[in-house]
Amino acid sequence: MVKQRKYVVKKPFQGLPKKSDFEIVETELPPLKDNEILVKTEWVSVDPYLRAYNSRYPVPYDQFSYQVGVILESKSAKYPVGKRVVSHKGWCDYCILDTVPTKEFTKMVYLLPDMQGISPSVGIGAAGMPGNTAYFGLLELCKPKEGETVVVTGAAGAVGSLVGQIAKIKGCKVIGFAGSDAKVQWLEKELGFDKAFNYKTVDVNKALKEAAPKGVDCYFDNVGGEISSIIINQMNDYGRVAVCGAISAYNEDPTKIPKASILQPALVFRQLKIEGFLVWRWGERWTEGVTQLITWIKEGKLKAREHITEGFDNIFDAFVGMLNGENTGKAVVKI
Amino acid sequence: MVKQRKYVVKKPFQGLPKKSDFEIVETELPPLKDNEILVKTEWVSVDPYLRAYNSRYPVPYDQFSYQVGVILESKSAKYPVGKRVVSHKGWCDYCILDTVPTKEFTKMVYLLPDMQGISPSVGIGAAGMPGNTAYFGLLELCKPKEGETVVVTGAAGAVGSLVGQIAKIKGCKVIGFAGSDAKVQWLEKELGFDKAFNYKTVDVNKALKEAAPKGVDCYFDNVGGEISSIIINQMNDYGRVAVCGAISAYNEDPTKIPKASILQPALVFRQLKIEGFLVWRWGERWTEGVTQLITWIKEGKLKAREHITEGFDNIFDAFVGMLNGENTGKAVVKI
Repeated sequence: MVKQRKYVVKKPFQGLPKKSDFEIVETELPPLKDNEILVKTEWVSVDPYLRAYNSRYPVPYDQFSYQVGVILESKSAKYPVGKRVVSHKGWCDYCILDTVPTKEFTKMVYLLPDMQGISPSVGIGAAGMPGNTAYFGLLELCKPKEGETVVVTGAAGAVGSLVGQIAKIKGCKVIGFAGSDAKVQWLEKELGFDKAFNYKTVDVNKALKEAAPKGVDCYFDNVGGEISSIIINQMNDYGRVAVCGAISAYNEDPTKIPKASILQPALVFRQLKIEGFLVWRWGERWTEGVTQLITWIKEGKLKAREHITEGFDNIFDAFVGMLNGENTGKAVVKI
Repeated sequence: MVKQRKYVVKKPFQGLPKKSDFEIVETELPPLKDNEILVKTEWVSVDPYLRAYNSRYPVPYDQFSYQVGVILESKSAKYPVGKRVVSHKGWCDYCILDTVPTKEFTKMVYLLPDMQGISPSVGIGAAGMPGNTAYFGLLELCKPKEGETVVVTGAAGAVGSLVGQIAKIKGCKVIGFAGSDAKVQWLEKELGFDKAFNYKTVDVNKALKEAAPKGVDCYFDNVGGEISSIIINQMNDYGRVAVCGAISAYNEDPTKIPKASILQPALVFRQLKIEGFLVWRWGERWTEGVTQLITWIKEGKLKAREHITEGFDNIFDAFVGMLNGENTGKAVVKI
């Protein structure tokens, strides 16, 4: 028998999640059934959507998220002991996974692809869900063309930092907004962004006008709120916006959505297209994205920086730290 | 020599346009050059975009808009005397038009199509620019499917009233928002809307939840502002929004765009697509739209109500009346 520890959300979050909203529950895992595997968690992901989805589930629920683990026992021929798997089983130290294929993203399980020497943790980051979010969201919805100007907010985050680098690979001019001077330095000096700004200390409207005198063609929106309205008002005719997230609103009371300058005048007169998405819509092309991302990482074209917290007991702190913007790159927890 | 009277905008509008922002200028028209025609204006259109575009042009400028006129003199074989033409020459009683084909919409001139007995004025309404705006905007951007729920704001206006009727032709459930009880009556009793509301007197959120318990699939947005945020927050997965106008913001200081609840959370979690448009993008399919619209009007499937003001000297009043929502159907002026 294996004992499992897992984080259970027992109270709906109000504003920023509190430690007391969670309970760590210890249970004995039952024996494996056919097609099941027993997995020891190695890496756990903390992402903005864990906050956003809270209002969708009745409490108590097990805290979901992506994780990478190693197979300890198997009743599935395709999932041999010793291999690593990616699942959405979340914040637990051991778990049982059903390996029968499903289209429900919350139950998706797949063998960690050949990481070619890169850390397995990247399988839940730059070569996992956040990687595919950047890859498909930018390329399928913004469709950036060589020479165009691409703006990304949340630019130093797990997704944003990849979006900017992929846009550079595609030959675009890239401008990023992030929340600290250190992040700005990293984006410009290490990731090759053409320009980055600390949105907390600059006049966004003015800074963007100077950095993008010809206007903005593509905008990858991770944050929502007034900064997005300002950026969208500087877009060129037929500009494209991919809306990936609205982290600026996730800690708000969901019945009291914050207000910002309306988008309709710019939408009409510049004939802009804005599309929100969840990465699951490209579920059938998952491997295509992951394979390309691993290749780019191996080639040195994509830097997959991680912000690593250690220890099962520190997952909550890593989560809130990420919501507060303390991470540069992908926030993960080593179990 | 023919004397022309025309409205010239001499001051940038501040808020609602004032009569003193215009000047009526009298000039002698020069003799015709090759490819030119002399036209006596019969019908002039007043539309929301005349307000919105004001900030784009330095004053003074001649007030543009669609108009229908009859050809009095011609130096163009394709435009014989006695035929009617549609142009964007605006608020004048006589004008000279250059008939050389152009892609610049402001200079577009075309012979009024065979109206099959319908008033020529419909050529600048339900079978003209507003007609094509409704036709292409709804069908190309919202792509409504039979059985889906379509919401339209500004529902009793020139475009909105057509959008709802076209959606009904396509087998959709149609809900409209308009600004008076009389308009609501007209939409429900005469145009066959499934439900209409006076947005000034109902709780929009509650009314829409009751009228569209299965959610909204398509939204044709003529107004922008908070009502749009409320509607968009009731959309189903993969909902489509066509943004045609933002009349709620047109009288505001353009540097002070009004605020409304942000759209990003709904955009992401429902994977919505919002697209703004100007009808000129379908300029090459203009005749297709007009022909279909005339057919529907002749078949009695589309009612093309007009709100007619008489007299050149009353164009300004018709314009401001339209901006204040006094019209039901297409606001036109008979010269």
